[in-house]
Amino acid sequence: MCAVFKERDAPLKRERVAVLAGGGELPVHFLKKAAEKNIEAVVIGIKGEENPAAIKLASRYHKVKFSSITKIIGLLKKEKINKLVFLGYIRHTEVLKPGNLSLDLRAMKVLLRAADLRTAPLMNEIIKELEGEGIRVLPTTYLMEGLLAPAGAAGRVRPKGRALKDAEFSFKMASELARADIGQTVVVKNGVVVAAEAQEGTDECIRRGAKIAGPGFVAAKAARPKQDLRYDVPVIGIKTIKLLKELKAAGVVVQAGKTFLLDREEAVKTADRSRLFILGR
Amino acid sequence: MCAVFKERDAPLKRERVAVLAGGGELPVHFLKKAAEKNIEAVVIGIKGEENPAAIKLASRYHKVKFSSITKIIGLLKKEKINKLVFLGYIRHTEVLKPGNLSLDLRAMKVLLRAADLRTAPLMNEIIKELEGEGIRVLPTTYLMEGLLAPAGAAGRVRPKGRALKDAEFSFKMASELARADIGQTVVVKNGVVVAAEAQEGTDECIRRGAKIAGPGFVAAKAARPKQDLRYDVPVIGIKTIKLLKELKAAGVVVQAGKTFLLDREEAVKTADRSRLFILGR
Repeated sequence: MCAVFKERDAPLKRERVAVLAGGGELPVHFLKKAAEKNIEAVVIGIKGEENPAAIKLASRYHKVKFSSITKIIGLLKKEKINKLVFLGYIRHTEVLKPGNLSLDLRAMKVLLRAADLRTAPLMNEIIKELEGEGIRVLPTTYLMEGLLAPAGAAGRVRPKGRALKDAEFSFKMASELARADIGQTVVVKNGVVVAAEAQEGTDECIRRGAKIAGPGFVAAKAARPKQDLRYDVPVIGIKTIKLLKELKAAGVVVQAGKTFLLDREEAVKTADRSRLFILGR
Repeated sequence: MCAVFKERDAPLKRERVAVLAGGGELPVHFLKKAAEKNIEAVVIGIKGEENPAAIKLASRYHKVKFSSITKIIGLLKKEKINKLVFLGYIRHTEVLKPGNLSLDLRAMKVLLRAADLRTAPLMNEIIKELEGEGIRVLPTTYLMEGLLAPAGAAGRVRPKGRALKDAEFSFKMASELARADIGQTVVVKNGVVVAAEAQEGTDECIRRGAKIAGPGFVAAKAARPKQDLRYDVPVIGIKTIKLLKELKAAGVVVQAGKTFLLDREEAVKTADRSRLFILGR
């Protein structure tokens, strides 16, 4: 058969994909999965968010400013890669520093097209620009479906009574916040939202909430009601679970199937030992 | 004429009203207005939020725990007052302290009836309970319409360019936050919501936002899209304007006709001197 003949004689063509890598552990998790599947991953790292572990795992590593859309497209063409995954966060605070908004013409065009500078309108325009160049932006969950939080309790602890009510309510409020594209995280106790996240990050929001509410609070992290899986998928990992343990939280609620629960085994072990629930909703 | 005869001979009956007074300056402003109009104001002060200036201005002062609905109704009946104004804030954090949720049966009933413990569902149930006893809850703006923020620029500074865009966007985002009944305040810079308020209060939210965004940010404070004027009407005063000046804000946006702009003359003078806008939307 022709196909068999080809497979035998032609050099094996490895699948190739590019990663636009922001901060956090997500790019590293992806690169490990890619290595397992023998997929070649070229990393385009955002300046200021370089991760040594990602650099080590990448087949090639380029560094760009987050605002250099022309350069990103140029690199992908040079690498002859037409599949791109956005992974890791880009701190909006970077956008706010004077001098950092030195956009190239293309970035400027994208920016002007966006209704406003919230993540969703901005990312949609960036994706449009890339797809116009034949570059397909893959969902963040590509190769990583197994790392998404499951529905229900991830560990042995299940919320009950007041904690269960707070879990339901906090998830609803986190979804509202995400719908407005302001943030993903809220902290709730006794039916009161004590802290809502914008740009300070999950951990700082949780610290603030814990300070106001005291022990027994519930944190929730949610995706937008219509989350585009190609960017900004919520992430939670062992670092946050350890923080919740330290601050004596009752538990945490995340959106099942739309939130990465990284380092799951260790996270669940830590949560179980602290009588802390991890609930997928 | 009969009416004239009555006015001359019957003892002049002063209008009487009760104030359920939480923290902040609003009860004091109200009591001054009441004195100007020769209206007798009995103050029921929330324990932990006592304001010496309000105590001094009240015709009589009672102290209650915020959770003692039975006692509040009892006091109003004893005082023979059937008009009540809610003024000043009750910190939700109080609700979260163990031991403070020692509700009387009536408060318990109200609490169970509320869909959740956010301000709107809770206050609606409390108002229903009071009105069932023939007590009318007056709008917070009663006697104080003159203290509401006007539409347009309150001072000489008007937002332009990027600041105007941020003013529009921040007001929209603050309204979204208020719609979800999470908080009233956001801080925006360059189209990014850097901070959103929940229970930490306006000033702390502004400090956090300023730290992330740096000078030139815009703060916005909004009412709920369908604000019930009987409770939780947003307030801004000289203290916040001075903070905005210190942190080098571009300006502040408030909801015209639904936000109290207290100490207006001093606030506008301070804002004008700092090239800071106060915009009513």
